[in-house]
Amino acid sequence: MLGELLDNVRQRHPLIHNITNYVTVNDCANILLACGASPIMADDLGEVEEITALCAGLNINIGTLNARTIPAMLAAGKKANQLGHPAVLDPVGAGASRLRTDTALRLLDQVRFAVIRGNISEIKTLALGGGSTQGVDADLGDAVTEDSLEEAVRFAKGFARKTGAVIAITGAIDIVADGERAFCIFNGHPMMSRVTGTGCQLSAMTAAYITANPDRLLEAAAAAVCAMGVCGQLAHQRLGELDGNSTYRNDIIDAVYHLNGETLEQKANYQIF
Amino acid sequence: MLGELLDNVRQRHPLIHNITNYVTVNDCANILLACGASPIMADDLGEVEEITALCAGLNINIGTLNARTIPAMLAAGKKANQLGHPAVLDPVGAGASRLRTDTALRLLDQVRFAVIRGNISEIKTLALGGGSTQGVDADLGDAVTEDSLEEAVRFAKGFARKTGAVIAITGAIDIVADGERAFCIFNGHPMMSRVTGTGCQLSAMTAAYITANPDRLLEAAAAAVCAMGVCGQLAHQRLGELDGNSTYRNDIIDAVYHLNGETLEQKANYQIF
Amino acid sequence: MLGELLDNVRQRHPLIHNITNYVTVNDCANILLACGASPIMADDLGEVEEITALCAGLNINIGTLNARTIPAMLAAGKKANQLGHPAVLDPVGAGASRLRTDTALRLLDQVRFAVIRGNISEIKTLALGGGSTQGVDADLGDAVTEDSLEEAVRFAKGFARKTGAVIAITGAIDIVADGERAFCIFNGHPMMSRVTGTGCQLSAMTAAYITANPDRLLEAAAAAVCAMGVCGQLAHQRLGELDGNSTYRNDIIDAVYHLNGETLEQKANYQIF
Repeated sequence: MLGELLDNVRQRHPLIHNITNYVTVNDCANILLACGASPIMADDLGEVEEITALCAGLNINIGTLNARTIPAMLAAGKKANQLGHPAVLDPVGAGASRLRTDTALRLLDQVRFAVIRGNISEIKTLALGGGSTQGVDADLGDAVTEDSLEEAVRFAKGFARKTGAVIAITGAIDIVADGERAFCIFNGHPMMSRVTGTGCQLSAMTAAYITANPDRLLEAAAAAVCAMGVCGQLAHQRLGELDGNSTYRNDIIDAVYHLNGETLEQKANYQIF
Repeated sequence: MLGELLDNVRQRHPLIHNITNYVTVNDCANILLACGASPIMADDLGEVEEITALCAGLNINIGTLNARTIPAMLAAGKKANQLGHPAVLDPVGAGASRLRTDTALRLLDQVRFAVIRGNISEIKTLALGGGSTQGVDADLGDAVTEDSLEEAVRFAKGFARKTGAVIAITGAIDIVADGERAFCIFNGHPMMSRVTGTGCQLSAMTAAYITANPDRLLEAAAAAVCAMGVCGQLAHQRLGELDGNSTYRNDIIDAVYHLNGETLEQKANYQIF
Repeated sequence: MLGELLDNVRQRHPLIHNITNYVTVNDCANILLACGASPIMADDLGEVEEITALCAGLNINIGTLNARTIPAMLAAGKKANQLGHPAVLDPVGAGASRLRTDTALRLLDQVRFAVIRGNISEIKTLALGGGSTQGVDADLGDAVTEDSLEEAVRFAKGFARKTGAVIAITGAIDIVADGERAFCIFNGHPMMSRVTGTGCQLSAMTAAYITANPDRLLEAAAAAVCAMGVCGQLAHQRLGELDGNSTYRNDIIDAVYHLNGETLEQKANYQIF
């Protein structure tokens, strides 16, 4: 099933509008190209609605939000809703500043997202309507572990019901849930957290997967999360003794470039609750 | 002849002012260093005229244009004209939004460009003074092929006469034309379209080539296009089984780093019409 | 001694707030992760004080400064001072435009920096309160050489006394000085100047080192400079015949990822004056 969702991305090569941060934007563009989609980046209020309309899906990432781009995010999100295009929200650093938390909450209030993807700390901030997070990394005390998995699944399903969005909480264990079902995904490698922007890249790729599979949002988001994790594992196997996080960054994108449906089916490691 | 133009870049190492998008800017900087030039990036209206004056050439790319940077592009372009510095325009996504089309047309109206480089769709948008393009990739239906080559050459020469600029239309076959002559270039590899920003990188490198060879604009632009294509071919030969578009990105820049005049002469594949 | 300072970065993994340019920001994030620290990038006036407060150290780089980010730099710097967090200034291109020179001087006037790192031309511009530099590369005529070393050390110590900051002047020979002592560092490789942003990366890493070693600012800044130079050498040894500046970029970050205290001790090449 997951393999077919991947194949659809390669066959339909959806054009994705990204309003994203300037730290990891190049990797987001390259991972979209790697998975079979095409990227457009545009963040000026004077053009975002047209660009959203030209594309098939939207990815909003607040990683380096500013006074100029926040209205553009809202306008693009509303336009996507109007046109029935699926939209992803990546609330990078929600909880780290009031501006980030408030912007994420405004986006949630004014835009209907198909998927919201973040770490447990960011997603909890949104669910609480505030709170605090330790910047852009998951607060370790809040990490999803075997022990807290059941509670985290309940939380994700509840927030999915509240927002109407698929909730993707990524970390050592990933949870992708709608109001009814949750995929708990055990792919990935700890070293992925030593590469900047693997989360941003996953959000961009998730936008491609759901845009190519609009009738199966939960499964498509889960497929994207599995794909990223599998590629993190495959790329890690390639690393030589002297390779570090920069080579790993390249190898992950290369692995996405070569990933096919069959390998994804075979290596995806998840349970449904 | 092309080899000498490359050698001049390495000997004169021109300093190039880039006002470019935040998606591919790092690759633009590294490819300028690879080919023997030096980059400066500066986009605030408060300093662009001084930076243009300090540099020897200018590269304007509208890939992530915004309300703040558009006046800076116009000011830098006019300053370059005043000082007789060659300027390149890369009208990324012209046709994808009114803001992009209008900005590209305003730039064309107020600034004299030495070279305009884009895909066929973007260049047609400029020539038509409007129209529509499929975002930042060439509209496939509009690709330059063996069959449409003659018509595309006529179009490029006509637009070159109208603008006074060398027109570089890049795609499967590249055309680089002034009002009289056109280089049709058969280098490159299809996988280059799977790397974000190869077009942006080429525009930056073109600025370096024409700045180092101000009396031979047509030949210098053609040499840059050939060089990029040859490096795309050389880099493709290096790719291992597991390498994808991220490694390819690195290998292309590495190939530019090592390219010398002799190899360029030997591998450049073009016809003049 | 230097090795212990490196180990402290890995043990304390300081969170560093970066207000930096969009050209090299991704490499700055990855080198911070490589050395054991964590990055947050945030540049909007609406959140920088909160982000600075959340972090343990601050890195301000004026590489693509603009009207929107300059007030954010000042606000973040003052907040860091209030909280006693160490701050680094990288005055990229000071001297290349009045905006850069004036901004760097305003920052120096209103913020107390723990370390100021630049090339000789940028640092001289700050010391003179104006002057001219050749963009972002060191003016070759002003390079620190064996012959000018003594004079450069005297200059660095004098400017350190005037500003109260550790002054790091990097080039073929690096000088890291407070008012009393200067480390003259002979590590590094000339090819590092062919990779965009090695200076920016070093400034980010310096922020990590001084934040993890707040009581030994001079030694910590010297350790960061040695570490970058050693990694430039180690990475250069890995380069294959076809590798160029893009692979070198990756290899340098990979080398930082693997560098340990023992190797740093063994390979650091410096004299104290």
